Amino acid sequence: MKQYLKYDEWSVIEDGFDPNNHEASESIFSIGNGKMGQRANFEEKYSGKSLQGNYIAGVYYPDKTRVGWWKNGYPEYFAKVLNSPNWIGINVTIEGFELDLAQCAVENFTRTLNMKEGFLLREFDAVLDGNKKVHVKAKRFVSLADTENGVISYEVTPVNFSGHINFTPYIDGDIKNEDSNYDEKFWNILNAEASEGAAYLESQTKKSDFRCGFAMRYKVLLNGKDAKYKSEVIQLNKWVGNHVELEVKQGETVSLEKYVGVTSSLNYKNEDLKNKAGELADYAINKGFNQLFSDHKEKWAEKWVHSDIRIKGDVAAQQGIRFNIFHLNQTYTGEDERLNVGPKGFTGEKYGGTTYWDTEAYCIPFFLMTSPADVTRQLLVYRYKHLQKAIENAAKLGFTDGAALYPMVTANGEECHNEWEITFEEIHRNGAIAYAIHNYIRHTGDKKYLEEYGLDVLVGISRFWSQRATFSPAKNKYVILGVTGPNEYENNINNNWYTNKMAAWCLKYTMESLNWVKENNPTRYNELLKKLNFKAEETERWTDIVNNMHFPYNEELQVFMQQDGFMDKEQVMADDLDPAQRPINQYWSWDRILRSNFIKQADTLQGIYVLEEEFSKEEIERNFNFYEPRTVHESSLSPCVHSILATKIGRIDKAYEMYLRTSRLDLDDYNAEAHEGLHITSMAGTWMSIVEGFGGKRAYDEKLYLNPDIPEQWEEYAFRITFKGNDLEVRVSASEVEIISHAQNTIELYLYNNLITVEPQQSKTISR
Amino acid sequence: MKQYLKYDEWSVIEDGFDPNNHEASESIFSIGNGKMGQRANFEEKYSGKSLQGNYIAGVYYPDKTRVGWWKNGYPEYFAKVLNSPNWIGINVTIEGFELDLAQCAVENFTRTLNMKEGFLLREFDAVLDGNKKVHVKAKRFVSLADTENGVISYEVTPVNFSGHINFTPYIDGDIKNEDSNYDEKFWNILNAEASEGAAYLESQTKKSDFRCGFAMRYKVLLNGKDAKYKSEVIQLNKWVGNHVELEVKQGETVSLEKYVGVTSSLNYKNEDLKNKAGELADYAINKGFNQLFSDHKEKWAEKWVHSDIRIKGDVAAQQGIRFNIFHLNQTYTGEDERLNVGPKGFTGEKYGGTTYWDTEAYCIPFFLMTSPADVTRQLLVYRYKHLQKAIENAAKLGFTDGAALYPMVTANGEECHNEWEITFEEIHRNGAIAYAIHNYIRHTGDKKYLEEYGLDVLVGISRFWSQRATFSPAKNKYVILGVTGPNEYENNINNNWYTNKMAAWCLKYTMESLNWVKENNPTRYNELLKKLNFKAEETERWTDIVNNMHFPYNEELQVFMQQDGFMDKEQVMADDLDPAQRPINQYWSWDRILRSNFIKQADTLQGIYVLEEEFSKEEIERNFNFYEPRTVHESSLSPCVHSILATKIGRIDKAYEMYLRTSRLDLDDYNAEAHEGLHITSMAGTWMSIVEGFGGKRAYDEKLYLNPDIPEQWEEYAFRITFKGNDLEVRVSASEVEIISHAQNTIELYLYNNLITVEPQQSKTISR
Repeated sequence: MKQYLKYDEWSVIEDGFDPNNHEASESIFSIGNGKMGQRANFEEKYSGKSLQGNYIAGVYYPDKTRVGWWKNGYPEYFAKVLNSPNWIGINVTIEGFELDLAQCAVENFTRTLNMKEGFLLREFDAVLDGNKKVHVKAKRFVSLADTENGVISYEVTPVNFSGHINFTPYIDGDIKNEDSNYDEKFWNILNAEASEGAAYLESQTKKSDFRCGFAMRYKVLLNGKDAKYKSEVIQLNKWVGNHVELEVKQGETVSLEKYVGVTSSLNYKNEDLKNKAGELADYAINKGFNQLFSDHKEKWAEKWVHSDIRIKGDVAAQQGIRFNIFHLNQTYTGEDERLNVGPKGFTGEKYGGTTYWDTEAYCIPFFLMTSPADVTRQLLVYRYKHLQKAIENAAKLGFTDGAALYPMVTANGEECHNEWEITFEEIHRNGAIAYAIHNYIRHTGDKKYLEEYGLDVLVGISRFWSQRATFSPAKNKYVILGVTGPNEYENNINNNWYTNKMAAWCLKYTMESLNWVKENNPTRYNELLKKLNFKAEETERWTDIVNNMHFPYNEELQVFMQQDGFMDKEQVMADDLDPAQRPINQYWSWDRILRSNFIKQADTLQGIYVLEEEFSKEEIERNFNFYEPRTVHESSLSPCVHSILATKIGRIDKAYEMYLRTSRLDLDDYNAEAHEGLHITSMAGTWMSIVEGFGGKRAYDEKLYLNPDIPEQWEEYAFRITFKGNDLEVRVSASEVEIISHAQNTIELYLYNNLITVEPQQSKTISR
Repeated sequence: MKQYLKYDEWSVIEDGFDPNNHEASESIFSIGNGKMGQRANFEEKYSGKSLQGNYIAGVYYPDKTRVGWWKNGYPEYFAKVLNSPNWIGINVTIEGFELDLAQCAVENFTRTLNMKEGFLLREFDAVLDGNKKVHVKAKRFVSLADTENGVISYEVTPVNFSGHINFTPYIDGDIKNEDSNYDEKFWNILNAEASEGAAYLESQTKKSDFRCGFAMRYKVLLNGKDAKYKSEVIQLNKWVGNHVELEVKQGETVSLEKYVGVTSSLNYKNEDLKNKAGELADYAINKGFNQLFSDHKEKWAEKWVHSDIRIKGDVAAQQGIRFNIFHLNQTYTGEDERLNVGPKGFTGEKYGGTTYWDTEAYCIPFFLMTSPADVTRQLLVYRYKHLQKAIENAAKLGFTDGAALYPMVTANGEECHNEWEITFEEIHRNGAIAYAIHNYIRHTGDKKYLEEYGLDVLVGISRFWSQRATFSPAKNKYVILGVTGPNEYENNINNNWYTNKMAAWCLKYTMESLNWVKENNPTRYNELLKKLNFKAEETERWTDIVNNMHFPYNEELQVFMQQDGFMDKEQVMADDLDPAQRPINQYWSWDRILRSNFIKQADTLQGIYVLEEEFSKEEIERNFNFYEPRTVHESSLSPCVHSILATKIGRIDKAYEMYLRTSRLDLDDYNAEAHEGLHITSMAGTWMSIVEGFGGKRAYDEKLYLNPDIPEQWEEYAFRITFKGNDLEVRVSASEVEIISHAQNTIELYLYNNLITVEPQQSKTISR
């Protein structure tokens, strides 16, 4: 861990240029708008180490699987997050010398991610040819208002000379993915044309045939006014741009404004991609940088109104939480049911795929309470649309009759991952996907969702569990054998408590949901039975499983057992590990990790978190005290759950310790892996640590509960949430809790288990 | 399964050419002499599908590991069996038309593997250019007498024309392995030179720097007399040879005799490789084809004296067993302690590595009883020499203080395999390696081996087991968690009965061996203690483990349980499987296989086989009856063990069924995989099925037991074994057993548990 970036409440600031941190900064300063995004690569040429990355949501490449030993059932392809043509490029030469921060002296360098207004700013002085100093200021954003536009303003001021400056704004289609399995490039270039002031490049993914169009326009200003310049068109096979040359006097500022329109075949017919991209670029250049930015900024202001968390008295924590919220909002906006929340968002291509169980388990709670209900609904519909693929996936594993197993990793509904212990065995993901439907309904009250989409998914999932659970005469119970739980430091275990718990929960919830639809909309119910070829008898086995599921339990300790045989392991505490051997996943061989009792991430505790209302505080405490010391938190998804439960059982210091571990994970690059991209989905866990952890927010029986606590390190914190369409703000200090209504209706909620009401636009303060 | 090859007692015969069977035949008709060998590729050009393969024992290539997802501890390299320069090539043109069986009419084709005399013979008529018919007869062998020589006699007779015939004998170094991880070639060519009548090629493996020299000479005869011919030297970068042209009249036979000398840096200094190979080739051409062959044949006759099994009344069974014995003797001769028995021998490169636990578990019983004791001793010393690497291997997995884990797959002592569930978990191999020492001693009486080499290995292995077993307070027993047993259809299981049993056995045997050396050679004992840094206290924990090991057991069924929780699985019998879904490893996804109760190969029964004296017949019967119906025998190593136990419990029909499954596995290409190479190591299991199965041969307390039975399909069978240096023959018919002594000493043995003695060179016949 290092504290390299400056603390600031609203911005992330890199002060001074260190090439060794550059790739991490490229990730950290990434920008995006849900539809596209990119790493904070430099516009001008940079010959140092860099991971160039531009991404368009929903555009992926099915890269043929490569494994050491093939196992039956492995997916043929792994869907890679696709590095797309690079539209940010503006090469610069000063008096014939190429501006390249790896090759010249750099002074006064700052890189700023302005999270409030959503832009990336870079300023520096560069000294070329021994003594020619220029000041450079580059600002760019991908618009949240005009979501197919990206804009750059690139200013150069000769500080101590007058001379020639050249700009080469371009679009480059000769792009590769670092993680290509067969070292091939994933794009064909269908069109590459340039003209005076404009360029267009159209690319096509191999195999998956996605097409993307990139149109560019630009404007050159001298001291803010249209400049005179010479230009030259450059058109290569995979690279198009203009070469611009002008004379600039000492102290004058020349700026190039680059306006880009990006289209993709997800949204347009192939034959329209070019015209539409051109129109978008024309629209942008006509609207102008300032107006585009102003509209963009306004959208960000709206985002912040609903999702900001304010922390007083702890600027590092304040910056950390805003960084997490900012990236979540950049990654997913809920406008397109075909999109999802990739584990690295628009910040890197590692892990591939775009959808993990992270979405349901972590991101949905965030979006549910900070965005209109529609946003979460899109994420649910995404899975609904993949139901057929999930049924096919289950069929590949030998399941029948409409049983659905959702993929561990996917871009289009097909399974991508190819480790058997994950792909085939980490089936608890099915539970999270079902639970998300329940979570959505209890926060929004939208029970109709069950009729429309929910029940199909629930029935598919329950059919899977029903077949996957088998009856053990030896135990006289149903068992689920050969699974990997959330704790991926165990593989092929039997009766993972969390998985069994979620399976039983799914079956029960599906039966309740079936009954609800039957009672409330019999016509639709009958339609659904027919559509799903569902027979009422199916629930007989489901009921039997619910009533007779085996849940490993240790009588002596009175704790749930992560799996059968867990107590046969040598019981060693994480604190007793040699610090030089941590993280164990970097120092221990895989078998040693598997044999150990060390837990990668919340597993039994994940189940207690999800189904908390089923357990007494004492039960939670016993299980927390058993599992926490055995947990090494070597997944970014782990500390948040422990933080939430620690608050629940009154261990606020532990909760704060866990919170710190999650909130600045990428900013301080704890695991020295930020260069690969950020941990986008676990960022939602940080948000949960505050709202569900310190804030104690719960939603049982469609009612809202708050039990706020506050770490002693903080003076005050405040968050805003939406519950059943009502918008409210919660401010917590050591002495009081204030509930501020931004709603149109009277809000009812339980604060410290007392029912209180808050009238529209009023607030209520309660002493703690 | 298909019966494509002709039945014959001493030969394998392919009658008629079917290109679809060619690659399988290339494997089946392979020849070798322990030092080198090759697939039955054609000498002349063949443009059809073929797997070209020449192999030199001990020469491997460390191919950088390629996996889908890297796990800590994976070996960096996989040692590939190396396809070496091709020295058999003789291209032929007839009147300018290239002889290529894929391009011309072929008549009267036969390919014969003469197992008695160890040669490959091919005869056919080919019709070129519409009507030019030639008769071809090609005979080749790699000499068992002159082990660095390979020889070919290639005869062509124009049947219906007179004309030009060209031969191009060559050595080709431009060779690749089909299984290269990065599509690279593994050889550099250091020297490629040709001269009149001779050629030399020297190759060097990349990274591992093995060097091999191939020198060729040839002779051209017309009707058996030196012919006149024109010749031309051809010398390319990686290809050297001569081009020979002569006129042949209708009915005359022209033959090219190719004599090759092969040297490698395993046996010579780099600078001597060329001269020595040249000398070898000169030696061969001077000795001449007939004399070389006669010496070779004599060596084979000796082999057969000691290892042949005769079966009367069942020619398919007779051919099958000889085929297995022949290939075992071709693969390993015990002259070099650096060599071992590769799973495919010299018949293909699949699986890589050269040494698996197959050697100790299957091959050693064969070599122990059919060869001088030295042969097996070499195989034991091989492991002794790898002890340090085994200690390093264990250290990579976190074990300390001299604990040794032998690799699952190796060429040089380093682990090669890279599936975690095998490499890290299939640790029972350590048990087989220790047991082989015991097996060697009880068959040879050579207890001194313990002092010299054995104890070092036993202590290393026992230290591993001592650390690998952990104490479970929950069970109040020692447990071994996270293993894969012989049944690889289970991964990461706890307390595999076989593994636990072998671990406890190893500890006990090591302590007994320590005591034996202490009593019989105290000086050496003290030396060893010092060398191994061994403390007498170490055995305290060993004793505790031996006394308190957990062995899963089902009280109700009174059978040993393959692992903890086995009875939680749905119990389904193999006979109830849909035949269309067998073998399940081709039809079921991996997780489904893992969850099922189906057993790939003998596991609990393997333990009962190995430690049979510990169990009553009733126990064996109960366990056999429990496990046999659950076993799918999808490993070539499986049926032999079931066959042996079936005989033991009097189920001779079952034993015969299992025997058939193993004995003609490759000849009849049951699993349609013979084209990849033969199942060399499991061939030893076939031999065991007769000698230990039907013959009921056992060796307890260094005494020999025989309990022969005979399948009703056979009139009579006879085998020959060596026990403690005494050579005896056993002939079994339905009515009698004859013991024929070929020994110098009086033989004592227990026939049907009655002690009998047979005087030197006498025989004794007992009615059954």
